[in-house]
Amino acid sequence: MSRELYFGVIGAGFMGKAHALALHSVAAVFGLETRPVVDMIATSSDDSAARAAKRLGFARHTGDWRELVRDPAIDVVTVCAPLPHREMVLEAIAHGKHVLCEKPLATNTGEAAAMQVAAEQAGVVCMVGFNYPKTPASQFARQLIDEGALGEIVSFRCAHVEDFLADPDLPMDWRMRRAEAGEAGALGDLGSHCIGMAHWLLGPIREVMAETRIVHAHRPAPDSGERVAVENDDQAELLVRFKSDVSGSLYVSRVGTGHKMGLSYEVTGTEGTIVFDQERLSEIQFYSRRDDARTQGFRRIPMGPSHPDYGDFCPAPGHGTGYNDTVTVEVRDLIAAITGEQPKLWPTFADAVYVHRVVDAALASVRDGRWTVVG
Amino acid sequence: MSRELYFGVIGAGFMGKAHALALHSVAAVFGLETRPVVDMIATSSDDSAARAAKRLGFARHTGDWRELVRDPAIDVVTVCAPLPHREMVLEAIAHGKHVLCEKPLATNTGEAAAMQVAAEQAGVVCMVGFNYPKTPASQFARQLIDEGALGEIVSFRCAHVEDFLADPDLPMDWRMRRAEAGEAGALGDLGSHCIGMAHWLLGPIREVMAETRIVHAHRPAPDSGERVAVENDDQAELLVRFKSDVSGSLYVSRVGTGHKMGLSYEVTGTEGTIVFDQERLSEIQFYSRRDDARTQGFRRIPMGPSHPDYGDFCPAPGHGTGYNDTVTVEVRDLIAAITGEQPKLWPTFADAVYVHRVVDAALASVRDGRWTVVG
Amino acid sequence: MSRELYFGVIGAGFMGKAHALALHSVAAVFGLETRPVVDMIATSSDDSAARAAKRLGFARHTGDWRELVRDPAIDVVTVCAPLPHREMVLEAIAHGKHVLCEKPLATNTGEAAAMQVAAEQAGVVCMVGFNYPKTPASQFARQLIDEGALGEIVSFRCAHVEDFLADPDLPMDWRMRRAEAGEAGALGDLGSHCIGMAHWLLGPIREVMAETRIVHAHRPAPDSGERVAVENDDQAELLVRFKSDVSGSLYVSRVGTGHKMGLSYEVTGTEGTIVFDQERLSEIQFYSRRDDARTQGFRRIPMGPSHPDYGDFCPAPGHGTGYNDTVTVEVRDLIAAITGEQPKLWPTFADAVYVHRVVDAALASVRDGRWTVVG
Amino acid sequence: MSRELYFGVIGAGFMGKAHALALHSVAAVFGLETRPVVDMIATSSDDSAARAAKRLGFARHTGDWRELVRDPAIDVVTVCAPLPHREMVLEAIAHGKHVLCEKPLATNTGEAAAMQVAAEQAGVVCMVGFNYPKTPASQFARQLIDEGALGEIVSFRCAHVEDFLADPDLPMDWRMRRAEAGEAGALGDLGSHCIGMAHWLLGPIREVMAETRIVHAHRPAPDSGERVAVENDDQAELLVRFKSDVSGSLYVSRVGTGHKMGLSYEVTGTEGTIVFDQERLSEIQFYSRRDDARTQGFRRIPMGPSHPDYGDFCPAPGHGTGYNDTVTVEVRDLIAAITGEQPKLWPTFADAVYVHRVVDAALASVRDGRWTVVG
Repeated sequence: MSRELYFGVIGAGFMGKAHALALHSVAAVFGLETRPVVDMIATSSDDSAARAAKRLGFARHTGDWRELVRDPAIDVVTVCAPLPHREMVLEAIAHGKHVLCEKPLATNTGEAAAMQVAAEQAGVVCMVGFNYPKTPASQFARQLIDEGALGEIVSFRCAHVEDFLADPDLPMDWRMRRAEAGEAGALGDLGSHCIGMAHWLLGPIREVMAETRIVHAHRPAPDSGERVAVENDDQAELLVRFKSDVSGSLYVSRVGTGHKMGLSYEVTGTEGTIVFDQERLSEIQFYSRRDDARTQGFRRIPMGPSHPDYGDFCPAPGHGTGYNDTVTVEVRDLIAAITGEQPKLWPTFADAVYVHRVVDAALASVRDGRWTVVG
Repeated sequence: MSRELYFGVIGAGFMGKAHALALHSVAAVFGLETRPVVDMIATSSDDSAARAAKRLGFARHTGDWRELVRDPAIDVVTVCAPLPHREMVLEAIAHGKHVLCEKPLATNTGEAAAMQVAAEQAGVVCMVGFNYPKTPASQFARQLIDEGALGEIVSFRCAHVEDFLADPDLPMDWRMRRAEAGEAGALGDLGSHCIGMAHWLLGPIREVMAETRIVHAHRPAPDSGERVAVENDDQAELLVRFKSDVSGSLYVSRVGTGHKMGLSYEVTGTEGTIVFDQERLSEIQFYSRRDDARTQGFRRIPMGPSHPDYGDFCPAPGHGTGYNDTVTVEVRDLIAAITGEQPKLWPTFADAVYVHRVVDAALASVRDGRWTVVG
Repeated sequence: MSRELYFGVIGAGFMGKAHALALHSVAAVFGLETRPVVDMIATSSDDSAARAAKRLGFARHTGDWRELVRDPAIDVVTVCAPLPHREMVLEAIAHGKHVLCEKPLATNTGEAAAMQVAAEQAGVVCMVGFNYPKTPASQFARQLIDEGALGEIVSFRCAHVEDFLADPDLPMDWRMRRAEAGEAGALGDLGSHCIGMAHWLLGPIREVMAETRIVHAHRPAPDSGERVAVENDDQAELLVRFKSDVSGSLYVSRVGTGHKMGLSYEVTGTEGTIVFDQERLSEIQFYSRRDDARTQGFRRIPMGPSHPDYGDFCPAPGHGTGYNDTVTVEVRDLIAAITGEQPKLWPTFADAVYVHRVVDAALASVRDGRWTVVG
Repeated sequence: MSRELYFGVIGAGFMGKAHALALHSVAAVFGLETRPVVDMIATSSDDSAARAAKRLGFARHTGDWRELVRDPAIDVVTVCAPLPHREMVLEAIAHGKHVLCEKPLATNTGEAAAMQVAAEQAGVVCMVGFNYPKTPASQFARQLIDEGALGEIVSFRCAHVEDFLADPDLPMDWRMRRAEAGEAGALGDLGSHCIGMAHWLLGPIREVMAETRIVHAHRPAPDSGERVAVENDDQAELLVRFKSDVSGSLYVSRVGTGHKMGLSYEVTGTEGTIVFDQERLSEIQFYSRRDDARTQGFRRIPMGPSHPDYGDFCPAPGHGTGYNDTVTVEVRDLIAAITGEQPKLWPTFADAVYVHRVVDAALASVRDGRWTVVG
């Protein structure tokens, strides 16, 4: 039986637009019985909201997000505004809405945990926007791991390196202030993607040992041009131990010259190894020790209809999915969780709280100079 | 001033779905003033059309394409049905519709030319669906060429290799029968992509010298399993001379083991070279002789907001666009041509006729064993 | 029973040095019973020969190559001087020497054929210096083909692209003059490597259809700086039909901006495909249709001890061999032919004559604009 | 003024052969005035030494290394025997020989330090065999760093991953026993390469934080087949802080499925980044922020005559050097240090002691679970 879900989106920037695009296409991509209605958008003013609604194809708009989260017609709220998200999310939950909130869920773990509790008490579906694991490639990586194609996993190495702050003359902004972005800089912003990917592929991390670094300690204030102090890390490196006893490391940088979407990982097992690079999101490299000795080598496997979710985007292999398609998969998962078709949604707010806790443990580890158990 | 364009799509297979997705998202991606309405879909029966409409998000449906092309509400018809397209296209034009027709436009050049004439006489916009040049990467390649970053072009080599017919036991189908697919096999199907890409990047070809080969001469009939003769080429290789005097070659295969979307090209100039591979559609390789001697090398450039159309999909570099996004760009071009914002649409039916003529010249060249001027 | 072979080398440039290095190391690399003695070097003057002998480790030297080829102590003569080679080779044969002559063997086919006849009548071993097929990777490619890992071969595409003449202001030299280099430019110089590689992998070519182009038609004379006409092709492209009925193409350029040692090939079969690039000479890519559907992909196989000849250079895989190592393999093959351990030497003078004939056929094809049978 | 240096080599395995090859070719490669004489080889028995001498081209041989190190004709001893090296090295030094000792220099730091002291007191040249930094590529990387092409260095990540022990059924051997190989397993064996490379590129490490893991805890004893305990680490990961304040990490594994010679590094600076992979030892990737925005990308730079030492192997770019060529460069450096032409030899025994101290600090860090200063 087919039905409709009315969506309200808060924010019309990078992710607001990405959500809008996903909502416009997800039903057709996956042939969903339950179709999202691209209903209302909220931004910071009536004017900008009107423009956003027209541009992004929403039926209604508002300059006040409170109006959106209280609107009885709205079934699902997606939060794409800058931090803080707390009030928006709690209010939406209070009104019985399902929520998809962009990462980072909160400025700190306490906030995130409060949202998780609220979500669980309200019994609504609450998801956080770690969409990178939603590529066919990273879903396939998980399949290979689960099927034992890699044998026992012995090492996991993940990096998320971008260079959007490599230029030391870029002005100070909210990301670099603790009050707004939290104590963790790249560690929170990009590290959460690594931690999320690690969780998706291999389950939770037990303890961490971290090192952080502010590479460009001062940046020009946007108004005065005077150099002011950057308040959180530009790069971080973590040794990690998973609950499963796998060893690994995570490396993040927002000043990593040359990398644009440098989320990459290598999963090594006793029987095989997977290498993935988000800049080439439609392929995966796979090595199997079970291959004949002379022809062992890393296979570059372009995604195709035999890999997860790819065929819904395109019936022909090697044609490639893009970044926005991963958001479409994410929204499909959200809808399936709401309709009850997918009982095990990933990642929920609980998963986001876990990510925050790993970041906390990393920060504590930096302070103490020792291994720290994830709380 | 904003307005709406009502679209009717004929066919609900691979490309019908791709068109539907593009129509759902194009206005939001590009912030279009003129918005497409995903109005009607036609398939071969009422039942399947009803299902397709529901699945792909069309308001109306029909089991008879004639109904669609005659419907007064429809502004634009896109033809995604299998060949022959002729009647559908001519009828749509006769009713004053703009048309986007999937490639190949026709089974032969005469048919294609008739459609071109009809389109020009009716004064409607008619486009053919060569969408591969619409990637940010291939648009950027064209920019670099036009700006002189490569100096004078001296060589162009292009291949389109797939392996969907590599298995000799795959049954005979319409693609391999002359009556349905035309005299050219891979040459027509995949060669048209190479010829189109060549045209986009470097302008028209003057003469060709070709070689074709049926690799698997017999295939099982789908019903009896008896081996029947394949009627057109599995692979073809062309030497070409452009009107601009550039030399080049085109290679196509539908039995090219290992390649899934193996459309690739290398443009060599006196000052630089570009290498592109559609399996990694979001990057391009560029070498410049003007670089410092010790650090000359092919640069792998991931697409980003500084490249054509990328920023409309995603404001962050390196995140990647996918196959369906190229169709979205195509539909944007179509709409811009209809509204008059883009006076130089590419590729029109005239361009499709040109592609057919190059294929004809190649077939003649194979028969005669000599260079053949494109008609 | 161990013995010694006394070598005389004519020429102390690029290849003269490469031969010297190979002679110094070949016995130790392969543990040869028959050891080469690095005996005498000849250059164009006594002085330069003395310096070369000291630098390259020869016991004796001469400014007159005739002295070398007539020296009774010398068993083997290697010819590394610029063209013409004819007189040196014939004189060496006349004195009963075995000969390794660098490519191209001759300025034209008649000359080459005369050398072949002389060699066969004298019963000496005569080899021509096509060393690229001697890498472990290209030997392994041949193994895979011979073993049927690729099924039936259906296509071969080879290119040899370098850019040493990409700069239009580089002065005229002997390579661009017909009297010295022959009628074929890049076609002769680089094309011979493609033709040789094709022969090594797939056997002889039956007919060709070629296109050549002088890209930089005039270059400064070295003395006056005045622009003079370049007399042979800068790039060439050939369609080829092998005797085995495989179709293919060869592309060569000496103005191919960006490529340094751009000898590459792709061999496509009904069951698998091999891709090789000489700039990464220690690896090969191999795709097999026999792999499981979800994990089919091109495997990057680094050479190791399980591949031909690699283990003699290094017992550990992936460490890599280099250009000079291919010359060492070549010299090993020569010695093995002389001692009778390798009855089927490749490439002999007969193979060089065949290469010349393919070049001749290509030139004739360019003149006539049609397919031309190899003589 | 030309002279000769008489070499004696102890050991005829992997590195003994590599040294022999380098000694045979180094003078010709570099046109050295001082030429090595490939004089004497010592192995564990007269018979095997005789065979090795014949195979590898030594004039003399002995089954007793003491005879070699005491021989008055010998100028330089290279030690390629398995551990322990201590007695051989000290005895050679005591007899006034210059020494090139393969890595690891010693089973522990005390031993290594004793050798360093002996070498310095004797005033002989003593080098340790970290040859990977000797590639043209890694020399060029150092040049780019020193010239400031990368700006200020902010991160260094290095890995050395091989899979020679990935098979859990491979029998126990000396590498896995503390008495013979030392307390550090992969950390000592492969880690020393990372630490050496880090030292070459960026100078000394100040402190480390490490994690080690025995992946296959038990292996079959070679004789009984009974499972016995592996005594040192299969993989290790280190966070490091350089004296220059650069942050970084090192990762090593001898069970890293899929990697054969997986020594790789990424050096990130404020202006550019270098990426290198020893499996493709003849190229480097370099990204510069100073490039034009639209054409920024990692450049794949094949080594050529404009890069360090390449031109001595081959005058044409892109042809590639191999593993044995790096040993030839190493021996050239050793000879230049002996003749006084290269006053700043790298790596000396002092550098080897430093490497041992970093390994010690890593082991201490593992025990204590905290950052440990290098002694």
